[in-house]
Amino acid sequence: MRIGMIGLGRMGGNMARRLMKAGHQCVVYDHSAQPREALAKDGATASHSLADLVKQLGDKPRVIWLMLPAGLVTEETVTAIAALLEQGDIIVDGGNSFYKDDISRARKLAEKNIRYVDCGTSGGIWGVERGYCMMVGGPKEAVDFLDPIFSALAPGCGDIPRTPGRDKGDPRAERGYIHAGPSGAGHFVKMVHNGIEYGLMQAYAEGFEILRNKDSTDLPSGERFELNLADIAEVWRRGSVISSWLLDLGAAALTKDASLENFSGYVQDSGEGRWTVEAAIEESVPATVLSTALYTRFRSRQTHSFGEKLLSAMRFGFGGHVEGQEPIDPASKTATRRQASR
Amino acid sequence: MRIGMIGLGRMGGNMARRLMKAGHQCVVYDHSAQPREALAKDGATASHSLADLVKQLGDKPRVIWLMLPAGLVTEETVTAIAALLEQGDIIVDGGNSFYKDDISRARKLAEKNIRYVDCGTSGGIWGVERGYCMMVGGPKEAVDFLDPIFSALAPGCGDIPRTPGRDKGDPRAERGYIHAGPSGAGHFVKMVHNGIEYGLMQAYAEGFEILRNKDSTDLPSGERFELNLADIAEVWRRGSVISSWLLDLGAAALTKDASLENFSGYVQDSGEGRWTVEAAIEESVPATVLSTALYTRFRSRQTHSFGEKLLSAMRFGFGGHVEGQEPIDPASKTATRRQASR
Amino acid sequence: MRIGMIGLGRMGGNMARRLMKAGHQCVVYDHSAQPREALAKDGATASHSLADLVKQLGDKPRVIWLMLPAGLVTEETVTAIAALLEQGDIIVDGGNSFYKDDISRARKLAEKNIRYVDCGTSGGIWGVERGYCMMVGGPKEAVDFLDPIFSALAPGCGDIPRTPGRDKGDPRAERGYIHAGPSGAGHFVKMVHNGIEYGLMQAYAEGFEILRNKDSTDLPSGERFELNLADIAEVWRRGSVISSWLLDLGAAALTKDASLENFSGYVQDSGEGRWTVEAAIEESVPATVLSTALYTRFRSRQTHSFGEKLLSAMRFGFGGHVEGQEPIDPASKTATRRQASR
Amino acid sequence: MRIGMIGLGRMGGNMARRLMKAGHQCVVYDHSAQPREALAKDGATASHSLADLVKQLGDKPRVIWLMLPAGLVTEETVTAIAALLEQGDIIVDGGNSFYKDDISRARKLAEKNIRYVDCGTSGGIWGVERGYCMMVGGPKEAVDFLDPIFSALAPGCGDIPRTPGRDKGDPRAERGYIHAGPSGAGHFVKMVHNGIEYGLMQAYAEGFEILRNKDSTDLPSGERFELNLADIAEVWRRGSVISSWLLDLGAAALTKDASLENFSGYVQDSGEGRWTVEAAIEESVPATVLSTALYTRFRSRQTHSFGEKLLSAMRFGFGGHVEGQEPIDPASKTATRRQASR
Repeated sequence: MRIGMIGLGRMGGNMARRLMKAGHQCVVYDHSAQPREALAKDGATASHSLADLVKQLGDKPRVIWLMLPAGLVTEETVTAIAALLEQGDIIVDGGNSFYKDDISRARKLAEKNIRYVDCGTSGGIWGVERGYCMMVGGPKEAVDFLDPIFSALAPGCGDIPRTPGRDKGDPRAERGYIHAGPSGAGHFVKMVHNGIEYGLMQAYAEGFEILRNKDSTDLPSGERFELNLADIAEVWRRGSVISSWLLDLGAAALTKDASLENFSGYVQDSGEGRWTVEAAIEESVPATVLSTALYTRFRSRQTHSFGEKLLSAMRFGFGGHVEGQEPIDPASKTATRRQASR
Repeated sequence: MRIGMIGLGRMGGNMARRLMKAGHQCVVYDHSAQPREALAKDGATASHSLADLVKQLGDKPRVIWLMLPAGLVTEETVTAIAALLEQGDIIVDGGNSFYKDDISRARKLAEKNIRYVDCGTSGGIWGVERGYCMMVGGPKEAVDFLDPIFSALAPGCGDIPRTPGRDKGDPRAERGYIHAGPSGAGHFVKMVHNGIEYGLMQAYAEGFEILRNKDSTDLPSGERFELNLADIAEVWRRGSVISSWLLDLGAAALTKDASLENFSGYVQDSGEGRWTVEAAIEESVPATVLSTALYTRFRSRQTHSFGEKLLSAMRFGFGGHVEGQEPIDPASKTATRRQASR
Repeated sequence: MRIGMIGLGRMGGNMARRLMKAGHQCVVYDHSAQPREALAKDGATASHSLADLVKQLGDKPRVIWLMLPAGLVTEETVTAIAALLEQGDIIVDGGNSFYKDDISRARKLAEKNIRYVDCGTSGGIWGVERGYCMMVGGPKEAVDFLDPIFSALAPGCGDIPRTPGRDKGDPRAERGYIHAGPSGAGHFVKMVHNGIEYGLMQAYAEGFEILRNKDSTDLPSGERFELNLADIAEVWRRGSVISSWLLDLGAAALTKDASLENFSGYVQDSGEGRWTVEAAIEESVPATVLSTALYTRFRSRQTHSFGEKLLSAMRFGFGGHVEGQEPIDPASKTATRRQASR
Repeated sequence: MRIGMIGLGRMGGNMARRLMKAGHQCVVYDHSAQPREALAKDGATASHSLADLVKQLGDKPRVIWLMLPAGLVTEETVTAIAALLEQGDIIVDGGNSFYKDDISRARKLAEKNIRYVDCGTSGGIWGVERGYCMMVGGPKEAVDFLDPIFSALAPGCGDIPRTPGRDKGDPRAERGYIHAGPSGAGHFVKMVHNGIEYGLMQAYAEGFEILRNKDSTDLPSGERFELNLADIAEVWRRGSVISSWLLDLGAAALTKDASLENFSGYVQDSGEGRWTVEAAIEESVPATVLSTALYTRFRSRQTHSFGEKLLSAMRFGFGGHVEGQEPIDPASKTATRRQASR
């Protein structure tokens, strides 16, 4: 199949490569020349503009996959490319768009009979080898038409054990992609996927912080341990209830440097985590863990918050407490108890 | 009444002054000479040792009030003073001891027929004028015996409107102190009081932070406001549902300097907040707000946590994300939406 | 001053009464006849339609205050009333509208030179006596023009102690209302007010639940207390750090019935709590306490959530755990420890 | 090797079977006869009392593995068995004991030169096939001596991909067990493992609840999706960032019945989740996600909490709100917005 790929960053470039490896032909475009040339060397047809890309795609229906940052860039590119397309052509937004934007985009493009497919794509830099997990929304015939593309990008069944009872379900899920529902459903499912991802990551983060701080001198000496975090992460990959791919990555990082000194602790978040919380609120779902995981990232990017200053101001107000001058003694309870039990 | 006061810091010194103002006689002790001398000038009898204090108290039963930091200091002083006391004497721990320590102390002292009273004391630096709110645990006759002391320290009914139906209740609550229950009950109630205090403070802190950040350039220009936080705090004191004494203090701080620049945002916590969470867990109470308020303080005292570094390490692992290099754009959803609605 | 009041529920009716008591004339409308007639008896001029109300208001500029449920009802009424108004007239939305709706409404009405003022109003059923705390957004001259109205509704300075340094600030805040900023700013500040309210309430709720469960038989017998919640709430009103108006209300409820048996525990939430969390997310503020307080309300309205069923399903999956059959023993740690210390 | 196994429940019985399969000899005991006999049929030597078990173990050093509920039962059995053992014998506690209990037990047993090993064991009902992940604490020579036992129980390297750089680390971690540190370290690491487990489970639970409620009639019709949860769980197992063993179990449960109707949503918790939070507090780690995950379980076991009733009581107090009578309209904001944008 012939497909146009717009956006050749970490994700888009590798996806084009995986598609070509599976025998598909890729016409590619990126606003900077370097990745276009790199892809051309790997067998793709480079184009120098959106119009050129559409032209080189040839026969209709033309399929164009966008792999761009969510927001303005995607929005403007969809508008620009739509102006070049005709009835029956297909636009796939494989990025991380807000699903309500998908719904309105699909509606607008439907007026021109251009089919719009939203595809949430997970897999990161490993996808080129492992395959990409895809959650797709949009009209059935468009999604069906794209099956060869999705199948090539997806991991396939591989050696992952079959879920009992799966033989009755849609076989595409086992191959690594689903048609989640109408327009927006693909990105909605991907959005929640990322929300969960934040929660999972935060659970590991808190756990490993508790392990690491177990050598704190605030603790009674008999209760301090110097734990080997790399070994712990490794053993948890082996038969424990909390084994996961994220833990595999954590184990790799801790094996390389258990102090994680190369990481500042300044943690970004993208739209999906935020939108997941908003979706929870719209549905009255008490999503405390997902919210908290998001908030940790907000906090990680500040030195001190205004709220914390207000806490200090109120403490000073009622107790005359001047922060940073009173030694903290988290072990005082224990100290007391030990003292008391003499 | 004649009472010994040990520990003449911000709280103890002022409590002695309030007691003397009400006609009680105070024999005072502190390990440093300066506050002893200051109290002596204000009419107290200074003593140079615990033994001297006990001796100067004269007739039995002797009443000794400890106003010391919770933990080792209180524990050791109780032990030392108990060795100097006799049957029928009363020790009041007015500090912030862990209530389980009260229970075991009371048991031990009961073997010598020394009566132990635990008194949680709220009021801070304002107590000397406003009076102290006291939550008392221990044997009934000891608490009854101490009524003149508690009454002098308490605010009294003042001009606070009466709660409907209160005429049937224990009148002491209206005067500003309660006999909460057996040994430990006083400090338990005070502990929960402080746990609630953390939660209340955090609610205000988050709210004011949302108000303050409303001028963030990340927001669409039409949705940015420069709000006057001092005026807002002030108006909320007037007829709103969230008026409170903590808000009064917040209003005072914001009126003095709405940017709170003199506060670092490094926020201490004391034992009570922690013990409240532990009590919640022992009772299976889902105390999310109280826990979170505590955790905010933990986090406020760190630059970056190990957990946050692990988040970055995992993000790098799956996505090649290098933190601190991707510009963050919290407005992207809005941007998209506005773009999309053209 | 002459003012039209639309919406005569718990809030609107009482506000009209307070305005008339201060000498203002009220033309009132409600879609049901009963409250219109009740207000007429109290001195208001009842109108039988929006058009009638506008007509009876007489000279321009006419001032119309809406006190309606946020959302569709307010939106439709603003539209309908605007069609009857002319240049220079003023609409005040005193309800709980979403502040972004204010911004777009104000913009639309400005095209007709109708002035739109958003006024967040706190005070509940007590406002008629205590006065209402108001946070106002909109054009300066309109807000200034309405000063007699706001002043009559506000509590005034009363006997609330003055905040130190307040003499330099806007005196309106002390009288009980503020001009918070341009359109939307009033409801934005009120929205955050309600967000804080949720957080404060949840802090008290958790604290009292910990107090109440302290007699749980899961606890070691020496550590169980039967606490008098009404007395505790009362004493905290007296000189403690956590005294507040909400606590006053809590004390009244607990004094009436300490078991709160007449309350189901099914807790509503309105838009403001949700929008506060969304605002926090837009501003990257880690508003964990405010979010959690909201989520508790979501959860309170369910018997069991789907998420909890999934927890059970996973527990069954890895451990064969069948829920509801294993007796829970929260005291097991303590039991062990006591055993161990023999 | 010859080993005694006490406690033949879901875990202990299967562990004995896995050990025998690897060629070890098991002398087994349980307080009920049925599992003893079942094990005897599978090749174990059944004993009718602790004394009998010790006798049948023969030559010293004798190794006894306890697989009992944490708390009193384990404590009493350790005491009883210790009375039957001699210098050099080894007790392994493979259950979920509180790590501070391990520390004091080890100290006491060391006085008799009995070696105590604490072993946190993960694997659940699948361990007999997959192998058990073990985190071991205690004296080095005892742990080294037990290597054949741990090796037989552990999963071994299997086909799990090697973590880059692992060749320099302790090879035991790759085989599925670690010597985490001195007494208590094994159960401490297992405790944190379970704390993380709660957090991970809660993240999935919230995510799937958001997916499921996406067909809520509160949402605008164009934004409602009926999502196939089983397909979603399945596709996430395939190349996504959030694939994990817990997700495998979730996928199996949802494939069997996507409505999870057989699960009540009443979710137990065991000591580890609670102790993890307490450890976090002792170390000043802001473990919000792990705490929240625990609290969700507390809440799942109640119909309504006292705290929620107090919320209603306060709402009634300030607003006259009667819960359960006002229809809730979570979509009101959206409704307004759609209305507004006409």
